[in-house]
Amino acid sequence: MSKITYESVLIIGMGLIGSSIARILKEKKLSNKIFALDKDNKVINTSRNLNLVDKIENDLNQYKDQFDIIFICTPLSSYKNIFDQLNTYITKETFLTDVGSTKLSVIKDFKQSVNNKNILFVPAHPIAGLEKSGPEYGFAKLFENRYCILTPIDSNDNLTKSISNIWKSFGMTIEIMEPKRHDRVLAMTSHIPQLIAYSVVGTATELETQMKDEVIKYSAAGFRDFTRLAGSDPVMWRDVYAKNKEAVLEMLGRFSEDLLTYQKAIRNNDLKYLEEKFNKSKEIRKIIEDIGQAGTFDPTEKN
Amino acid sequence: MSKITYESVLIIGMGLIGSSIARILKEKKLSNKIFALDKDNKVINTSRNLNLVDKIENDLNQYKDQFDIIFICTPLSSYKNIFDQLNTYITKETFLTDVGSTKLSVIKDFKQSVNNKNILFVPAHPIAGLEKSGPEYGFAKLFENRYCILTPIDSNDNLTKSISNIWKSFGMTIEIMEPKRHDRVLAMTSHIPQLIAYSVVGTATELETQMKDEVIKYSAAGFRDFTRLAGSDPVMWRDVYAKNKEAVLEMLGRFSEDLLTYQKAIRNNDLKYLEEKFNKSKEIRKIIEDIGQAGTFDPTEKN
Repeated sequence: MSKITYESVLIIGMGLIGSSIARILKEKKLSNKIFALDKDNKVINTSRNLNLVDKIENDLNQYKDQFDIIFICTPLSSYKNIFDQLNTYITKETFLTDVGSTKLSVIKDFKQSVNNKNILFVPAHPIAGLEKSGPEYGFAKLFENRYCILTPIDSNDNLTKSISNIWKSFGMTIEIMEPKRHDRVLAMTSHIPQLIAYSVVGTATELETQMKDEVIKYSAAGFRDFTRLAGSDPVMWRDVYAKNKEAVLEMLGRFSEDLLTYQKAIRNNDLKYLEEKFNKSKEIRKIIEDIGQAGTFDPTEKN
Repeated sequence: MSKITYESVLIIGMGLIGSSIARILKEKKLSNKIFALDKDNKVINTSRNLNLVDKIENDLNQYKDQFDIIFICTPLSSYKNIFDQLNTYITKETFLTDVGSTKLSVIKDFKQSVNNKNILFVPAHPIAGLEKSGPEYGFAKLFENRYCILTPIDSNDNLTKSISNIWKSFGMTIEIMEPKRHDRVLAMTSHIPQLIAYSVVGTATELETQMKDEVIKYSAAGFRDFTRLAGSDPVMWRDVYAKNKEAVLEMLGRFSEDLLTYQKAIRNNDLKYLEEKFNKSKEIRKIIEDIGQAGTFDPTEKN
């Protein structure tokens, strides 16, 4: 694939994902100038100290530039306002893409705010992340060998191809999906596991003090996997549940029903049922390892 | 701490944990001879091929030796039978310890089977593991900097000290606990997270085929953390739920109640509740990282 080089890129939101985009753009020399926006002074200072971008401001109007491409990497509740601002600011043809975890809501917000034909938007969701938040944790390899789902608004093949190429240049594999389907699939692969992780950790925090201390102390027994997910950014996740309510409630219902069958099997000493179910789940793990989407876990501690 | 050296050690069950014990005994030269028992021919062959022990058999009666110390590292349902055999086989003073995930049931089985005063048993639970099973996945560092919980049957301080020193020599930190308390704490830190992980993965396997394929494909979004746990040994876990039924059902009830409050908050758009809860869970993660019990997760793939 030929190398794409832009004159200028704007990243809105310099958290884990935004800062990883900044890093890969720099590392692969994909843009001459990398600009950023963030509302949080701490994030602005960290981005400056780490020299992640050429310039970072807290307001779009502090820029006088136009951009070749803009990435939105903020919590979903801020999209509406960002779209409104871009709608008045943009004066030349500009590619726009995002990293939001829901897609129906993003498209709805976009359609309500934007009538500026210079804004060429293809919604995206790079399936890559880490439980850490903040620009200090980003890294260029975050996207490597991961999927990026695009949910184009119109069937503009050229535009979709252009935005695809951007994400491909980060090392990602592109998949095109209907936004509604995206939101259902991600409810199951992401929003439900995350909610359950929060909930399990929440249950532990409400135990009596001594018990709680011991749960933390002996967390290496499995609980720590849930806390890893629960280490993610609370505001980002709060917004996901607000924006993907319908699919989340559907999948949560399915999960609760299934969990009840396990509970019943334990109560009735139905060991055969449990073993069969556990074997099926183990097979799924094997497939995920085989397709190279498992990541690697090291049970020892790094210093 | 002075180095302990035994003349001979017997490991019953050469899975992930048993084979890790074999490896650390060998690496630290803690025993002159390392013997093993396993019922599974595949495990026996792997142990022989990897040269993990001096001798491995599938029946205790194929040995003519006595041992200084015996480790039981098998699923909980086999304990009763093992205790019965040891009760007739052992003719000299022998330390006995185990690695079982429940302790009340182990003590009950022991008391029912063993009246041989040469058997000096202190139940143990090293809080260390990995989602893999089988001797090929064991490694000597598995126990390093992890807790080992001992639940002594009698207040024999000398015996407890001797068994403590064995686990300490593997790099573990020893904690003494009432068996009942152990079973409740572990229900929360281990048995419930594991069951929920199985259940989430199970829910995904019951989706229609295309949806299921996509859930697997995009598992890097969070789902994979659950599949990691669900990759563990099904028989071992089946036994845990049979043996720790009461505490598991209690904690499962607490979790289900909590999950319903999240579900309700999503349905009612109570974003404030969600954000507060998520923030609390994030704090717990921070503590677990600070005390060095988090392990490390690498979101990239190793080849």
